[in-house]
Amino acid sequence: MCGGRAGAGEQWSGCVRSFASCSGNPASCRKMPQLGLLHWRAWTVLLGQLRRPPGAVCIRAVRSHSQVAEALFTSQLKPHQEKSNFIIKTPKGTRDLSPQQMVVREKILDVVVSCFKRHGAKGLDTPAFELKEMLTEKYGEDSGLIYDLQDQGGELLSLRYDLTVPFARYLAMNKVKKMKRYHVGKVWRRESPTIVQGRYREFYQCDFDIAGQFDPMIPDAECLKIMCEILSGLQLGDFLIKESWDCHCFDGEVIDKAFGLLPLSSQINDRRILDGIFAVCGVPESKFHAICSSVDKLDKMSWKDVRHEMVVKKGLAPEVADRIGDYVQCHGGISLVEQMFQDPRLSQNKQALEGLGDLKLLFEYLTLFGVAEKVSFDLSLARGLDYYTGVIYEAVLLQTPVHAEEEPLNVGSVAAGGRYDGLVGMFDPRGHRVPCVGLSIGVERIFSIVEQRMKIFGEKIRTTETQVFVATPQKNFLQERLKLIAELWDAGIKAELMYKNNPKLLPQLHYCENMGIPLVVIIGEQELKEGIIKLRSVASREEVAIKRENLVAEIQQRLSES
Amino acid sequence: MCGGRAGAGEQWSGCVRSFASCSGNPASCRKMPQLGLLHWRAWTVLLGQLRRPPGAVCIRAVRSHSQVAEALFTSQLKPHQEKSNFIIKTPKGTRDLSPQQMVVREKILDVVVSCFKRHGAKGLDTPAFELKEMLTEKYGEDSGLIYDLQDQGGELLSLRYDLTVPFARYLAMNKVKKMKRYHVGKVWRRESPTIVQGRYREFYQCDFDIAGQFDPMIPDAECLKIMCEILSGLQLGDFLIKESWDCHCFDGEVIDKAFGLLPLSSQINDRRILDGIFAVCGVPESKFHAICSSVDKLDKMSWKDVRHEMVVKKGLAPEVADRIGDYVQCHGGISLVEQMFQDPRLSQNKQALEGLGDLKLLFEYLTLFGVAEKVSFDLSLARGLDYYTGVIYEAVLLQTPVHAEEEPLNVGSVAAGGRYDGLVGMFDPRGHRVPCVGLSIGVERIFSIVEQRMKIFGEKIRTTETQVFVATPQKNFLQERLKLIAELWDAGIKAELMYKNNPKLLPQLHYCENMGIPLVVIIGEQELKEGIIKLRSVASREEVAIKRENLVAEIQQRLSES
Repeated sequence: MCGGRAGAGEQWSGCVRSFASCSGNPASCRKMPQLGLLHWRAWTVLLGQLRRPPGAVCIRAVRSHSQVAEALFTSQLKPHQEKSNFIIKTPKGTRDLSPQQMVVREKILDVVVSCFKRHGAKGLDTPAFELKEMLTEKYGEDSGLIYDLQDQGGELLSLRYDLTVPFARYLAMNKVKKMKRYHVGKVWRRESPTIVQGRYREFYQCDFDIAGQFDPMIPDAECLKIMCEILSGLQLGDFLIKESWDCHCFDGEVIDKAFGLLPLSSQINDRRILDGIFAVCGVPESKFHAICSSVDKLDKMSWKDVRHEMVVKKGLAPEVADRIGDYVQCHGGISLVEQMFQDPRLSQNKQALEGLGDLKLLFEYLTLFGVAEKVSFDLSLARGLDYYTGVIYEAVLLQTPVHAEEEPLNVGSVAAGGRYDGLVGMFDPRGHRVPCVGLSIGVERIFSIVEQRMKIFGEKIRTTETQVFVATPQKNFLQERLKLIAELWDAGIKAELMYKNNPKLLPQLHYCENMGIPLVVIIGEQELKEGIIKLRSVASREEVAIKRENLVAEIQQRLSES
Repeated sequence: MCGGRAGAGEQWSGCVRSFASCSGNPASCRKMPQLGLLHWRAWTVLLGQLRRPPGAVCIRAVRSHSQVAEALFTSQLKPHQEKSNFIIKTPKGTRDLSPQQMVVREKILDVVVSCFKRHGAKGLDTPAFELKEMLTEKYGEDSGLIYDLQDQGGELLSLRYDLTVPFARYLAMNKVKKMKRYHVGKVWRRESPTIVQGRYREFYQCDFDIAGQFDPMIPDAECLKIMCEILSGLQLGDFLIKESWDCHCFDGEVIDKAFGLLPLSSQINDRRILDGIFAVCGVPESKFHAICSSVDKLDKMSWKDVRHEMVVKKGLAPEVADRIGDYVQCHGGISLVEQMFQDPRLSQNKQALEGLGDLKLLFEYLTLFGVAEKVSFDLSLARGLDYYTGVIYEAVLLQTPVHAEEEPLNVGSVAAGGRYDGLVGMFDPRGHRVPCVGLSIGVERIFSIVEQRMKIFGEKIRTTETQVFVATPQKNFLQERLKLIAELWDAGIKAELMYKNNPKLLPQLHYCENMGIPLVVIIGEQELKEGIIKLRSVASREEVAIKRENLVAEIQQRLSES
């Protein structure tokens, strides 16, 4: 299941770039057009703590000279040739994950996958690329962002854009009518940095989906429950929504203020309600998808700009756009559902009524799950992708501003999903439908937040799990060290030694302290003669002598106690 | 670190295809040219047990009509359109992994990654694609197998071909001089099914590498130790080599027989020894790489065919080829190293002597690690890739033939690697070298073997980890079930329920039996009134009544005991 932008981490890295090009002086950033809607001061707070990736300097150089760099790359890389102008980098919009970052990502994936398994999901994997035709007409305006593979003879292929379409393809191909699966994998999107600041082009998605014909809204409610469990589990912030929440409907300018101190907000809507709104406002049906895409931009653009796009780019009559504006600027709780049921125009539309009925049931189930108060009904939520047919949802991270009078920041979606009942049928030769609902967790943005928090709380990240280091203070002990460490490895103990014939003792002990290795085994001439071994605790610096033959048992005992 | 063919799983799937197209009658396969060097009867034994993937029928149809299929795909996929001729599949050479297969793969990756961590490796991740230039001139003849991305404006990109080159690029880019890292990820190769039977085009590699300047052969020995630990840990077979092993040098026809009953064999060689052989045999230096590629094919082709390639395709003088043949048909243990030291021609070559000296030291360390007897010195081992500079190794699976008089089968490499001291320098603007050695575990082929073994030993694979099912025998209990299951989830208990308003009890209990769920919580009107809950053990069918408020504690107690 995929979120249009869950996981892309757009503005985070966008800002890193902006900072890089403004030479570390935030004041000059204030004027920079790249910052778009985001306030520079909040970015300072948010990102000031973020560790620079190991390649930051190099990447920065490349970013500020990207055209020069691209020209340079066209020359072939040969060994021993003159390479003084050679710049080495990862492709635009991608990055390596360092060992430190890998530890953080593994922690996050562990929380996410544990939750998926807690809800009874099976694992599934699909190829990184699909036949190009499989991805056609699934993503609306975003289709241009698909990476195609070069035609090297044979099939035309594209890198997957999300994990949802491959899942639907799998269901149709294997005639699976019912399945609860999770899938963790990379997806690729050719986001243009000029349109969306610095969004990653390669990122992880963690998807959970329920396929099958079931009684209404039970699987949908479970998906939202999962979303709440994961966001709580990752401690991304207290994403409670104020109980005194009111609908600031038809009062656009005031709405954003209402988000005040909410770090994370989960919103739901329903595609049928949106379609109903478009219908009663007078949008021709052929323009529903295009207008839906415009509405989807309300999280990044003001209503004024979205309205302009609708009228100028998409050819909507101004009064139709205004009517849409009255609706899509509404958000609230369950009471807004009731209010919309009473809306004189909307209540005449069959589709909208179906959507409202389902949302009402959904809120009932969310109450039983204990998460209803974490979710708000937001008529501006549209989700860009074409394949949604019913309920849609998104968890957005909002950053508390530094000064009370400033507007909160939408730092982007961290989880999203919805119902797509028609997608599997698009792959089935006879059009057999398998209704589906699911969600996607966007790891990249969560990653930045968790990394930042670990830094703030001073959590030291160990990049290895080594338990014992095999050391010697004497020369010519390599053979003994090798025999000894093999014994530890064979007993399942995580152990390292220095790849030196005659290392000095101090660097060996320093290495243990730096790497957080708890135990050191020390072997020397005297010990060898007496048939003993010294076992040293790195933290306490205590050393005890142990019989050589008891070493493994003693180490295992100590490790089980710690 | 990558093995040229470790992990591609070539013949395995190749045979599945061959079988598919010969309609299940193995006798007719006997004549099929696709089977190449492999004996049909051994394949029957090997693959008869292999479960067909869920999409097998569909894939089979597509394979036998691939040209028709490709023509059909050129028509666009539209919802509701006539799709009676539409065939849905994964791209050629790729496959989905079903939930059952995912469980097997996770078990394997767990063994592999645990071993890497036991040896103190840090994790690392790199993008799926690299700048095309980064992969240029790294893979010799295999470069044509690289997947390029379409030029959609911007950088020219290629999918990674292995994990070794991205690692070297990472080291150079971040000026890392020392690192022990592991990397588990997919790589892509456009293997042509007409050249190499059915090798996968997308497959996992698990790499462990040690970068840095250290005392000779210590890291190299650790890599071989790791290879042995993983292959033992996966119980791929008892890969002991007979102690009475003799060198059948210069007696080509007899050699293969010597493998007799050895399911798995690990071979080592050194690029410098090979280069030395080429030099003393009279190969022009410009042809070293090309001739090395030919030697590399000795695991799939007879010496006669390889010799033919050397002479006809690569323009080698026949007598030079014959001289090479005398050497590369040798294999043995440490005694062969000594024998080669005495070889009148080879002992005159400086490079060869260096390689032999290192191999001698390596065997010494392998003895200390307790794995020397699992490794043989094989002068035919060449490893196709350009970047190796020193010791090279490969673990090959040999299948015991059905009849004693038949030759054993080389079912392909399951692990491979070597030393590549020049690769990082190719990326560094100033050519600074970082010596590296590493290994790559080929998961796909191991996967087939482990899957087969699990089937033979009747290991039932659970695809979910669900611990408790929430059931009811009565109507109108959805609300109670939802409240109850949320409580379980919030307590970290893995739980499922049926997505039905009013399910019948029997299907709920059957589901638990089928899925191997150990516990059922049953709630009904009577229980609700009395403030109790029934807890049922699926295996024993025993039911006990528990106070509602004690449910979570009781379940946790039971789960901790089991």
